[in-house]
Amino acid sequence: MSLVVRNIPRADQAVIDALAGFGVATVHEAQGRDGLLASYLRPIYRPAAIAGSAVTCEVAPGDNWMIHAAVEQCQAGDILVVAPSSPCEDGYFGDLLATSLEARGVRGLVIDAGVRDIAVLTQMGFPVWSRVVSAQGTVKETVGNVNLPLVCAGALVNPGDVIVADDDGVCVVRRQDAAMVAQAAAKREAAEVEKRARLAAGELGLDIYGMRERLAEKGLRWVDEAPAGREP
Amino acid sequence: MSLVVRNIPRADQAVIDALAGFGVATVHEAQGRDGLLASYLRPIYRPAAIAGSAVTCEVAPGDNWMIHAAVEQCQAGDILVVAPSSPCEDGYFGDLLATSLEARGVRGLVIDAGVRDIAVLTQMGFPVWSRVVSAQGTVKETVGNVNLPLVCAGALVNPGDVIVADDDGVCVVRRQDAAMVAQAAAKREAAEVEKRARLAAGELGLDIYGMRERLAEKGLRWVDEAPAGREP
Amino acid sequence: MSLVVRNIPRADQAVIDALAGFGVATVHEAQGRDGLLASYLRPIYRPAAIAGSAVTCEVAPGDNWMIHAAVEQCQAGDILVVAPSSPCEDGYFGDLLATSLEARGVRGLVIDAGVRDIAVLTQMGFPVWSRVVSAQGTVKETVGNVNLPLVCAGALVNPGDVIVADDDGVCVVRRQDAAMVAQAAAKREAAEVEKRARLAAGELGLDIYGMRERLAEKGLRWVDEAPAGREP
Amino acid sequence: MSLVVRNIPRADQAVIDALAGFGVATVHEAQGRDGLLASYLRPIYRPAAIAGSAVTCEVAPGDNWMIHAAVEQCQAGDILVVAPSSPCEDGYFGDLLATSLEARGVRGLVIDAGVRDIAVLTQMGFPVWSRVVSAQGTVKETVGNVNLPLVCAGALVNPGDVIVADDDGVCVVRRQDAAMVAQAAAKREAAEVEKRARLAAGELGLDIYGMRERLAEKGLRWVDEAPAGREP
Amino acid sequence: MSLVVRNIPRADQAVIDALAGFGVATVHEAQGRDGLLASYLRPIYRPAAIAGSAVTCEVAPGDNWMIHAAVEQCQAGDILVVAPSSPCEDGYFGDLLATSLEARGVRGLVIDAGVRDIAVLTQMGFPVWSRVVSAQGTVKETVGNVNLPLVCAGALVNPGDVIVADDDGVCVVRRQDAAMVAQAAAKREAAEVEKRARLAAGELGLDIYGMRERLAEKGLRWVDEAPAGREP
Amino acid sequence: MSLVVRNIPRADQAVIDALAGFGVATVHEAQGRDGLLASYLRPIYRPAAIAGSAVTCEVAPGDNWMIHAAVEQCQAGDILVVAPSSPCEDGYFGDLLATSLEARGVRGLVIDAGVRDIAVLTQMGFPVWSRVVSAQGTVKETVGNVNLPLVCAGALVNPGDVIVADDDGVCVVRRQDAAMVAQAAAKREAAEVEKRARLAAGELGLDIYGMRERLAEKGLRWVDEAPAGREP
Repeated sequence: MSLVVRNIPRADQAVIDALAGFGVATVHEAQGRDGLLASYLRPIYRPAAIAGSAVTCEVAPGDNWMIHAAVEQCQAGDILVVAPSSPCEDGYFGDLLATSLEARGVRGLVIDAGVRDIAVLTQMGFPVWSRVVSAQGTVKETVGNVNLPLVCAGALVNPGDVIVADDDGVCVVRRQDAAMVAQAAAKREAAEVEKRARLAAGELGLDIYGMRERLAEKGLRWVDEAPAGREP
Repeated sequence: MSLVVRNIPRADQAVIDALAGFGVATVHEAQGRDGLLASYLRPIYRPAAIAGSAVTCEVAPGDNWMIHAAVEQCQAGDILVVAPSSPCEDGYFGDLLATSLEARGVRGLVIDAGVRDIAVLTQMGFPVWSRVVSAQGTVKETVGNVNLPLVCAGALVNPGDVIVADDDGVCVVRRQDAAMVAQAAAKREAAEVEKRARLAAGELGLDIYGMRERLAEKGLRWVDEAPAGREP
Repeated sequence: MSLVVRNIPRADQAVIDALAGFGVATVHEAQGRDGLLASYLRPIYRPAAIAGSAVTCEVAPGDNWMIHAAVEQCQAGDILVVAPSSPCEDGYFGDLLATSLEARGVRGLVIDAGVRDIAVLTQMGFPVWSRVVSAQGTVKETVGNVNLPLVCAGALVNPGDVIVADDDGVCVVRRQDAAMVAQAAAKREAAEVEKRARLAAGELGLDIYGMRERLAEKGLRWVDEAPAGREP
Repeated sequence: MSLVVRNIPRADQAVIDALAGFGVATVHEAQGRDGLLASYLRPIYRPAAIAGSAVTCEVAPGDNWMIHAAVEQCQAGDILVVAPSSPCEDGYFGDLLATSLEARGVRGLVIDAGVRDIAVLTQMGFPVWSRVVSAQGTVKETVGNVNLPLVCAGALVNPGDVIVADDDGVCVVRRQDAAMVAQAAAKREAAEVEKRARLAAGELGLDIYGMRERLAEKGLRWVDEAPAGREP
Repeated sequence: MSLVVRNIPRADQAVIDALAGFGVATVHEAQGRDGLLASYLRPIYRPAAIAGSAVTCEVAPGDNWMIHAAVEQCQAGDILVVAPSSPCEDGYFGDLLATSLEARGVRGLVIDAGVRDIAVLTQMGFPVWSRVVSAQGTVKETVGNVNLPLVCAGALVNPGDVIVADDDGVCVVRRQDAAMVAQAAAKREAAEVEKRARLAAGELGLDIYGMRERLAEKGLRWVDEAPAGREP
Repeated sequence: MSLVVRNIPRADQAVIDALAGFGVATVHEAQGRDGLLASYLRPIYRPAAIAGSAVTCEVAPGDNWMIHAAVEQCQAGDILVVAPSSPCEDGYFGDLLATSLEARGVRGLVIDAGVRDIAVLTQMGFPVWSRVVSAQGTVKETVGNVNLPLVCAGALVNPGDVIVADDDGVCVVRRQDAAMVAQAAAKREAAEVEKRARLAAGELGLDIYGMRERLAEKGLRWVDEAPAGREP
């Protein structure tokens, strides 16, 4: 038996929007270098930067039927997260489904498979992070689950978790941790402002971060010339 | 013995141009989800959307000699389709060959290998779909066939078949089927206009396509909350 | 023991700038089709075209500590070349390090690993050629060598060698050969001007290069129609 | 903060042993075609077939320190499951660690990374399923978690879940479902005995499963000869 | 509409058996270095060496239904050739289907997808060449074609063509060319006997094939010591 | 101009043989975790374990001509190391070349490309480490260098360097360092004997290596139960 779960918890929208602003790299660092989806997920156009609540959708290989069932569960501010039950590169999603999601206020799609109609999606400004671009059509024969936890591109995504996606990739933040992560990200971003200014002024990271001594302790030596015979 | 075949049949130019307008995803669906080349073929710039008659060219690995022989067989409205006899990523094609093809009215290149000079090709507006970008030069030592059928990126291409290529990838349509496929594509596109409007207005695909009953028959259930212990 | 070598020889800046102008494909041909780094190194934005003196930096997997040590060895006109000691796709480099390199007049980064903050790097106009884009953060625990020869993306790079990088990829020119290669590239480029004009005017490469006889000697035949039964 | 969890629940040993007997394909089917780890995990020698309770271990890229911490948490009947926090192919595990695990009665290793000393591991009869074989050594600098849930090769593994591994790959069974899955697998295996006998006697699956009518309903037609012009 | 074609022509069995004896490398050379399927097709056990008449079977991704329909079309001496309509790694085939094929005298399976139950298949001595090993089960929902030409692993295979498969991979020989190719292979093999003996006796290929002069003409020079500064 | 260098220095044969005995993992560690070739080089049969002096050979893609020139430069105790000038998977090497090398006392082949006739090579006991197995034949048209330094599978190999290869992969040791590395490897191996005994007796690496305190300093904590809400 496959299930569509209608009610899922969602994080606070203001927190979600804050996470979008920090971006994937900062959010991922702020939660302890955790939660990245695999780097093969790439945006179909750049720049693109969103965050939203995950509606999860498991599909069979070569079969996009469940995406239609998932659309109904999406609301404004959500991001649809689709993963096939075994590896597949077919073009599960195109401009008609995007039109439907856009009508519901959905912010974008993350799919561990293929997408098509990317010229139209780009014109629409509907962002998608996918494994490949492929025009390959799919069938509608096999059911799967909507809004149950699933592994997408190597990361566990629970329905209602916050998805942050930008040009650097895609990150998932546990719904319960969203506010805490947003705070940590804000702190991290603030700290970077001063560092960026000092680096721009020509100061070295070696000095700002005080690295020289520990590098030496670990065995690093500075020499004026390469010793004879040091090749790779 | 290797052959260059001088005379190949071509589809009607108006049909070819119509196919270009429908795009790869629609054309591929219109002929029964058939004819796609592998999704690793990507355009060197976007957007790009063309169709044309295939002039086929088999090359040896690391050897672009036969492309020079193939150029002579190209005429206005053609697309050159190149495949190596064993996997190779070298940069078989650059701006000089593109200049030559452009002078003959050729619409673009599809190559299951590498291409180079892509900055110039982009400035020229000469579209290429390739496996990789690589500056690696090639030799001119080994002959191959021009205008015999060949497998390119996993699909059989006969000389004179119609190639349709856009941001979604590359599709081949048998020359004899081109008119019929164009008709089917037109029908499909017309049907999508109404659907797109209804989806944009917020109607659900589940309802437009009447999917709910069949989903239930296949075992899908809608529940308000996730049952305990359902994890991926 | 790991080393940071402070003094490295560099090629003449005028020669380096000339190589940047010729581009990767021409330079690679001019030195005998040699010196290309693997084609999986791609620029984070296009167009991008630079040349500079290599400062080399070996890093441990998932550890970007040594990049901080390498920054100090970079000067105006350099390109930082980073390679991990075993395959890694982490995001070793982001906008803070780019700010620091930019402050020193460094022209760009070549890294056989991942990069992040690419939206900001694109805005900054700081070019990077990398294996992947990944937000994955790194630690600072393990030392490596700066300015010793290293293999990056399949090519040996010595400190002070000239790196040429553009939309076609990345090429290395031995420092000692830089002037000679620049001359050969200039000669090659000059020769292409006339050829390009003739090709644009519709002349065939077959004729310009006098290929027909040798093609026939190697067994190529021109026929009007495909013989029966010739399939791929 | 990283954690080592000392106490984890385990499934009944008799159930685990039963699952080992059924093998990966049957177990995966018996639990609804679910739970497979990615097919790139391959055994270092064949045949190999085990099942055991998962002790999970998260490691940093290029750093096998936490495996030493995980060994202490392993007991007889366990399988150690290791996943790096970002993709890495280094050789995290060799004959010394295998000796240590063997001394504790551990049944094998599943690792989404590299393994080395495979000639010795093969002689020892200590089975390993890994992504690659690599001699690349690792450091001991970064801590991670032991016995927290983790994603390994695309599948969520909780500590105490049952791992089933054989020549076909690796499958995870939720600890709570283990008995139920074993029953379903037994039923499935029993049903296959009769089918195998009938198939061996020359009966067709088309007839045994009564497929002909439904195939025809879906549009399949049997013809004596291929119609003209049907090409791929 | 999908088709199962009942009657296909087959090559002479004695010729097929002769081709099996020559092996893939020799047969591929004998027909002009043509007809190899992609090298990612690997045997599940070694050594294995067969030849047979191709029964072709197109399957949907994640759907092995048509294999059941194809089995009925197989007869003694055949090899079943399966290709998915889009890339898929699922385990389409296991020991039950092998039992059925074995009962019909089928010699083996070539599949551009996954296979499972390989421990049993190895015990049975039923050889399979596949893209991957995967336990992933499939559905039975979508029809496809049996005994129409198809592209498998990058090569066109017509029903009734001869498939030759061994430890080196898989090769297809056009049915009409089978006798001619077998003759050429015999000639090639005979020629190698003498060469092998001379090489085993220490004669050099450079001398046996008289290569020295032509190598020199192409610019090769023999020197006693490497010139200064020749690095990669 | 391409060169064949006739005279190359070689390491002491007793040292080479000692390195063969230590194996790849130990040798690589003994020289500071350096010198591994990429892990995609795999032996065609197992077990296999050799060491020898590198004779290097650069080949063009799809062209094995230079291997014939390299054979003449090989002597007893050597290992032939072949790398293509751009990525290629063709089957450059088969049983005839192996017969020739065997007649000269060559110990094996390392090739960053394809190999064929592996059933015969296995029977002969001639070990090969290659990127793929492929029957694809090659031409003899383009010259390259023999016994100049080259990058093979990501590592620099100088002629006369020591190649160590076994089931774990391939490692290069600089000729000048060979004796020193052999000593370090012997020391390392000796140290492992005692550790292996202690581990086999049930002692923990945590205790043998005294890791507990430093793990705790880096933030590792041991807890009896997983805290609530700790998911991947």
